Amino acid sequence: MLSKSQISFLKSLQQKKIRKTHGVFLVEGSKSIAEFINSDYIIETLYHTPSFDPKLLNLSRKVNSEQASATDLAKFSSLTTPQEVIALIKIPAWPTLLTQKLQQGFSIVLDGIQDPGNLGTIIRTADWFGIKNIICSDDTVDAYNPKVVQATMGSLSRIHVHYVDLQNLLKTTDLPIFGALLDGDNIYTTNFGEHGLVVMGNEGNGIRPEIQELIQRPVTIPLIGKAESLNVAIATAVFCSEISRVKYVQK
Amino acid sequence: MLSKSQISFLKSLQQKKIRKTHGVFLVEGSKSIAEFINSDYIIETLYHTPSFDPKLLNLSRKVNSEQASATDLAKFSSLTTPQEVIALIKIPAWPTLLTQKLQQGFSIVLDGIQDPGNLGTIIRTADWFGIKNIICSDDTVDAYNPKVVQATMGSLSRIHVHYVDLQNLLKTTDLPIFGALLDGDNIYTTNFGEHGLVVMGNEGNGIRPEIQELIQRPVTIPLIGKAESLNVAIATAVFCSEISRVKYVQK
Repeated sequence: MLSKSQISFLKSLQQKKIRKTHGVFLVEGSKSIAEFINSDYIIETLYHTPSFDPKLLNLSRKVNSEQASATDLAKFSSLTTPQEVIALIKIPAWPTLLTQKLQQGFSIVLDGIQDPGNLGTIIRTADWFGIKNIICSDDTVDAYNPKVVQATMGSLSRIHVHYVDLQNLLKTTDLPIFGALLDGDNIYTTNFGEHGLVVMGNEGNGIRPEIQELIQRPVTIPLIGKAESLNVAIATAVFCSEISRVKYVQK
Repeated sequence: MLSKSQISFLKSLQQKKIRKTHGVFLVEGSKSIAEFINSDYIIETLYHTPSFDPKLLNLSRKVNSEQASATDLAKFSSLTTPQEVIALIKIPAWPTLLTQKLQQGFSIVLDGIQDPGNLGTIIRTADWFGIKNIICSDDTVDAYNPKVVQATMGSLSRIHVHYVDLQNLLKTTDLPIFGALLDGDNIYTTNFGEHGLVVMGNEGNGIRPEIQELIQRPVTIPLIGKAESLNVAIATAVFCSEISRVKYVQK
C-alpha cells in the first residue's frame, strides 16, 4: 500500500512547478493509459486497486506497478469519480523544436490559451486531423495539467506540444503564418497550400498585438448569426477541417 | 437585502426540477444578462451588489432589481468567482415545434448529449453559424442548467432549444435527415443542399440505434490522424462550417 509521503507527492503533481521539478505527470483511467503505453512515453509506475488487472492494459513491455486502495487513489486523483488505475509517466524532453521539423503539413500555434479543457480539446482535435505539432507560447496552460491530460482522451500520447518564445519562432520561420483574426480573408476562399502555421489566440483577448504583427495571412471564419465569438477549440477545429478538406476536394 | 428563504430558493434553481416547477432560471454576469435583456426573454429580477450600477446593462425596458451583498450572491452563484449581478429570467414557453418552422436552413438535432459544457458550446457555435433551432432528445441535458447557460456566452438568448420525442419528430419530418456517423459519406464531398436536420450523438455512445435507423444521409468527418473520436461540440462545429461554406464557395 502507499505511504503517506507517496500520496502527498502524487497529489502535489497537480501543481505545474512540482511536475516540472520531477519531470513526471499523471494519467488516469485504463483507456488513456493504454495509449501512453503504446507510445514512446516512459511509464514509471501504475497505481491500481487490488481488483484491477494490469493485463487489461495489454502491456507490451514490463511496467512497474503498485497496488493502492480506491481511497488512496482518490486522494491524488483529479477526477470527481476516480478510476481504478492511475499512471505516473515521464514528461518527455522533446528535442529542441527545429523549424525543419514543422515543414511537413500544418502546425497549430497557441498564443496564451488559459483553459485546460480548451487545450485538451485542441490536442484531441489535432490528433483527429493528423496534425503532429502544437506550439504554445510560454504562458499557455501546461499540457501535463491533469485537466488537459483528461480532455485529450489519450491523444497527448501522440501529439508533440512545444513551449517556446513565439515571437522568436515566428520571426525566424520561413513557413507561411496564418492567423485566426476577425478582419481577415474568408476562410472558405483561402488557399492554405500544403504547409504552414496557424496561430490561434487567447480566450478573452485573442492574439497579442506583437504576435499579430507577424501574421502574414489573417483569416476569418465568417459570422452568419449573432454570437460575439467562437470558443477557441471550436475555431481551431474549423481551421483544421478547412486545411484537411483539400486532401479530398480541390478548392 | 435578501431573506434566507429567497437565497435558498435561488440556490435550488441549480436543480432542473425546481427550474421546471417555477419556470425560471439564472443568468450570471452583466455581459450575458445584457443579451437576454435585448431579447424576447422576460427578466423577473436583477440581483446585484450595491456597487453595481444597473445602468451598465443599457436597460431598454424597466426591470425589477434588488440589492444583495456579494456574500449572498455567492450563496446561489454557480461560479467559483461570482459576478456582481445575477438575473432571474423566465423560461420561455416555446410554441409547439412545428416542422414547418424548421424549413429554413439547417437545425441541429442532439441525441442524448450529457455534458453541459458541450451543449453550451454547441448553442454558441450554432449562433455563430446562423442556425436558429436546436432540437434535443428529452434526455439531453437541460439548456437552462447554469453550466450550459454560462458556456453559451449569451447565445442562449437567441437560439431556440426544443426538447422533443426525437423518434417521433424524425419519423414525421419531410426534411432530409443527415447524421454524424463513423461509416458515412465523406463530409467534404457531401452536398447538404439548403435545408435539413443534422443529428449528433451522445458523448460516449453516439446516436442510439433506433435514431440511427431514421438517418437518411450518414456523414463522416474523415480521420486523418489517430484520435479515437472527436468531441461532439467540435464535430458539430465542423458540420456547421461545411453547411455554411456553400454560402461563399460552390462545392
